[in-house]
Order: sequence, then structure tokens, then C-alpha cells
Amino acid sequence: MSQSINIALIGATGSVGEALVELLEEREFPVKELHLLASSESAGQSLSFRGRQVRVRSLDAFDFSQVQLAFFAAGSEVTKACHERALAAGCSLIDMSAALPLAQAPCVLPELGREGLPVLKAPFQVSAPTPSAVACALVLTALRPVVQPHQLQLTAMLSMSTLGRSGVQELARQTAELLNGRPLEPKGVDRQVAFNLLAQVGGVDEQGHAELEKRLAAELPQLLELPDLSVSATCALVPVFFGDSLALSVQCDSPVDVTAAQQALEAATGIELVEAGDYPTAVGDAVGQDQVYVGRVRAGVSDPRQLNLWIASDNVRKGAALNAVQIAELLIKHYL
Amino acid sequence: MSQSINIALIGATGSVGEALVELLEEREFPVKELHLLASSESAGQSLSFRGRQVRVRSLDAFDFSQVQLAFFAAGSEVTKACHERALAAGCSLIDMSAALPLAQAPCVLPELGREGLPVLKAPFQVSAPTPSAVACALVLTALRPVVQPHQLQLTAMLSMSTLGRSGVQELARQTAELLNGRPLEPKGVDRQVAFNLLAQVGGVDEQGHAELEKRLAAELPQLLELPDLSVSATCALVPVFFGDSLALSVQCDSPVDVTAAQQALEAATGIELVEAGDYPTAVGDAVGQDQVYVGRVRAGVSDPRQLNLWIASDNVRKGAALNAVQIAELLIKHYL
Repeated sequence: MSQSINIALIGATGSVGEALVELLEEREFPVKELHLLASSESAGQSLSFRGRQVRVRSLDAFDFSQVQLAFFAAGSEVTKACHERALAAGCSLIDMSAALPLAQAPCVLPELGREGLPVLKAPFQVSAPTPSAVACALVLTALRPVVQPHQLQLTAMLSMSTLGRSGVQELARQTAELLNGRPLEPKGVDRQVAFNLLAQVGGVDEQGHAELEKRLAAELPQLLELPDLSVSATCALVPVFFGDSLALSVQCDSPVDVTAAQQALEAATGIELVEAGDYPTAVGDAVGQDQVYVGRVRAGVSDPRQLNLWIASDNVRKGAALNAVQIAELLIKHYL
Repeated sequence: MSQSINIALIGATGSVGEALVELLEEREFPVKELHLLASSESAGQSLSFRGRQVRVRSLDAFDFSQVQLAFFAAGSEVTKACHERALAAGCSLIDMSAALPLAQAPCVLPELGREGLPVLKAPFQVSAPTPSAVACALVLTALRPVVQPHQLQLTAMLSMSTLGRSGVQELARQTAELLNGRPLEPKGVDRQVAFNLLAQVGGVDEQGHAELEKRLAAELPQLLELPDLSVSATCALVPVFFGDSLALSVQCDSPVDVTAAQQALEAATGIELVEAGDYPTAVGDAVGQDQVYVGRVRAGVSDPRQLNLWIASDNVRKGAALNAVQIAELLIKHYL
């Protein structure tokens, strides 16, 4: 990583964008010039980077030939609208919005420790996996010597920061309105989420699957290099500001050695196994941390071939921003 | 139901106890005398029943020979401590606290429409299933013509009323403290539950299973008359006051006809199927209702032999109190 590069960050004013800027600085990423970009409404704000204020400019007028790498940390519509402009200008990109098919932009999770990056030729496009996939893939990779899954069943209880800063603000607003006995008019979500659970994130297709659920089912087999792995996910929004909670059930062909599974998790880097009898939570453990927290490691009540776990992870910093920076670190070493 | 009987209600001052008193009145249950009982600390309060105030008395001094039937709606310790006293005095009982083994106190869910009550001889003891089991059993019975499950995977996201009135109060208190920026000292739960998820309800055994999870795994095969059904449950507490949300995954041996499953749910009494694309929530739909709400009916993303559902149900009124009164109605018809 001797060479410094010019970087664009699209979605700079969002919570993931801000976390990215912090991590680029913290991890001393070799940034020559940092271009912060956002929609024209958000342009004009400033973020601090290496002791100076960097002004956020409008994405519309940006010339991608000025940069070698772009982080797409805004919504999937933004990626879809602009990624070809970036590529045409010779700029490689890391998509954090799950907008691009995995066949076109393969999923990368450097922490898995495999150097097996797809063969890339700049300008290239790669996908940062969704935060829930990051957490699950790290845990399942740590378990690999002990557990060979053929099916995953995941209930992902996602915090409101999944919807970005507006989701966080909406939970705070709704909670205050309700506690003050005022009538509730939901904004940005279709109903009350304070003191309630929403059973899906965004719309669903004709088969009833949400985008995020299909994406998880595609990302995990690719990340784990288990193309036949069956993944079933239910993604719900819960009245939590930050941090995701995942109830993961791993189905295997033979009985699981739970003690060996606990030992494998205990030994893994990047994973914090909480003591048996205790459990991790988003707010109390995971938020602000680079580790993924795991607890409630146990077999099925009536099926010894099943391993059940509870995972808590910081979706913004760990699940999204840190992994994207780690991808960039890997790419710059090999390809840029 | 011509004959009126004397009834004792243990745990009268709890939220389930209050809902029971309301339902006994609403459904014109043939009550001759109603004895409201609670711990000595709660004794002295009054509840309204058929236009008059009934005083709550201490359980300690109560003579069970005065009544033919007792509802045990307090904690499991109370049932364990007192149920033999009731039986010895000739009083039959409905346990709502999951304190008694199912072999000793069989699980009954009259709404399943089977008259196949176990052969009972007064004084007898039966168990009211846990609220999550009630909701799941109703849905799975409606699906029976279409779906033959061999495995259930359940993530039960339980409201704070699962812990009784103190749980509801604690969520309100914690939320207010946090919004006012005051330091949080949890009471009755071991950590922050406002804007957070707790991965288990109560303690766990050496294998890592909570009581409630083991109970669900025992109740559902009995209620569904599928003794070989494998049930795996994760029960978590969520920052919701009332109403449970259940992510249920049903594994079958052959592909599921999702349209036929939707039609079966649509046709079932006691179940409200929300439109495809929409989803039910605890607060918006289920709370205060006698129906169980179902939505997000879909196959697994990569496994057509799987049916996934989201269920929202009122745990206090529907899941606990209504079913207990329906059990009593069935029992009085046949056995009392």
C-alpha cells in the first residue's frame, strides 16, 4: 500500500458515509484526494477528514476520471444510475447498496482470510455484502471446521439505521410523539415502528420475498463457497436505533458438537463469544465495535443436527463501513 | 352449560388476570361465585365483575374446597406451590403458567375444534398452552390440509407483557429515562430493553435452552398430534408493550403449494390473513383482537419445501386469557 489514490465517496452525508470517512482516517488508508459526494440537496455540508473540513459536492456534475476508486454508499437507485458513468471514466467501484447482480459485481469479505479474490481488471466493480451477511459469514467461517451447513434459517431483526439516518430519526420522533400522547403520522415507513415490529423491509416480489432477503440468500453461498447452501431469511425492522440482532439456525447432516462449536468461536479473531448463560445485545455489546458478538450457542431442542446462535453486530460501522474499507485495502494491494 | 360453578382466579391483579375477568363477563361464563386471589401484597385491591366490585384476597388463606375450578394465572412458582392444595380440596385447575409437566396436565386448545379432550376425572389439571404455541397451533391446523410439517423453526419476538405488568412498566420507564438522558438502572430485567433486543427470556439450562423454548417444543407436537414433529424455538424479548410477533418456518418433505396455503388460511376461522405484499403487526393489527394475524406467506427463497410465515397475536387476551376461558367452557360442558 505504498501508492496513494484518489477516492470518491457517494452518499457522504449518510451514517454509513460518515463512518467510512472516519475509518479511512483511522486506518490510515492511502488517500491522496477525497471527493465527498451526495445528492444536490445534501451538497454544501462539510465533513472533517485528517484535520480539515472537506466540502460535500453534488454527484451530478462529478467527473469520475479524477478518481481511481469510488465507494457507492447511497441508495441502490443512485448506484444503478451512476455506476456506468464511473466505469466509463475508468473508475473502479465498491457497491455498498446491493444494487448490482453478484455475477457482475462479486461479493468480497476480506476478513474471511481468503486471498481468493475474483480475477479483476481495473476498472472493476465489486459488492460489499449486506451487514447481516457479513456477520453470518464471519461466524459460519469460524465454525467451518466443526459445522458443515446445508441449510440456514435466519431471522434478521434489523435496526432502523438500516434505512439510513432518516430511519433513526423516525424512530426517535415516533417514540417521542407516542410518549407525549400525540397522534402518529409515520414518515418514511408505512406505519408505527416505535414499540412495534415491521415484518418486512421495503416491498416484496410476486413470490413474497423482499430484495434484502433474496440478496442474503445469494450472498451467503458465494461468500461461504457453498453454492448448494439453502438460505431462507426473514428480515424485519425493529425499534432499535443501531445494531442488528440475528437468530441463526444452521442445519447440518449429522449431530453438531456444540462444545467444539463454542471452542471454534472462542478461538476466532473478529468474533466475541459471550459466556454460556449470557447473551449479546446490539446496544450493550455490538454497537461501536469491530467484533461480531455471538451467544446462545446450542443444538436444536429436538434436533441434534441443528446449531442455533444469536448474533449481534454493528450494521453501520462493522457491517458496512469497515468491510468496505477492508475491501479497498485488499484491492489497492492487488489491483490499483 | 346450565350449571353455574364457583371459580377461583389466582393472579387476579396481573394483566392476564384482568383480561380473564373481562372475558368471563363478556362470554357470560356461568360463574356462581368468583374468588379473586393474589399474593398478600396485592390483596385488598378490587376488580369490577358484572357491575360490582370484587375484592382481591390473599391466596395464602384461601380454602379451595369452596370452588370447583381454579385458573392459575400467576407465576409458575405460585402454581407449583399451590396446585396440590387445590387438587386435595377437590378443585380442578387450569394452569396458565406452564408450571406442570404436560404428561401430568395435558395441553388443551379448544379452538382446534377437536373434541378429543384427554379423559379427565375431576379434580383434574390441564395446561393452557403458551401464547406463542396457541398462535402457531391455530395457523398450522388451518394449514393441515396443505402442509404436513416435519420441522418447525420459530423465532418468537415477545412483547414485554410476557413478563406481566412489571415488564410493560419497565419498558415505559426505561424509554422515558433514555429520552430524558438519564442513566438507566434496569429493574426486573437484567439490562436495557428499550431500543434493544434481549435474546432470551429468563435463565437457560446447561444445554442453553430457556424454559419457554423447551415448553414450546413440547406443546406444539402435542397440540398438533404430531409426536415426531421437531420444533426449534428462539424466544426473545423486544421493546414492544403488547402483542407477539412470530417468524415461523415450516419444513415439509415435498414442495409447498403456497397459493393453496394462502387459501386455507383465508378460509380458516379465527385467522386473519393480510393481503399479499402487506404484513400484520402486533400494535396495528393483533392487540385487542381475538384473531391471529398472518402474513408474508411464502416459500423458502431457495427451498420450495419450506413455508415461511409472519404471525402477530395478542399474547395477553388471545394467547392466554381467551384460550383459558374456552378451556373452562369445554370442561364445564363435559366434566364439571
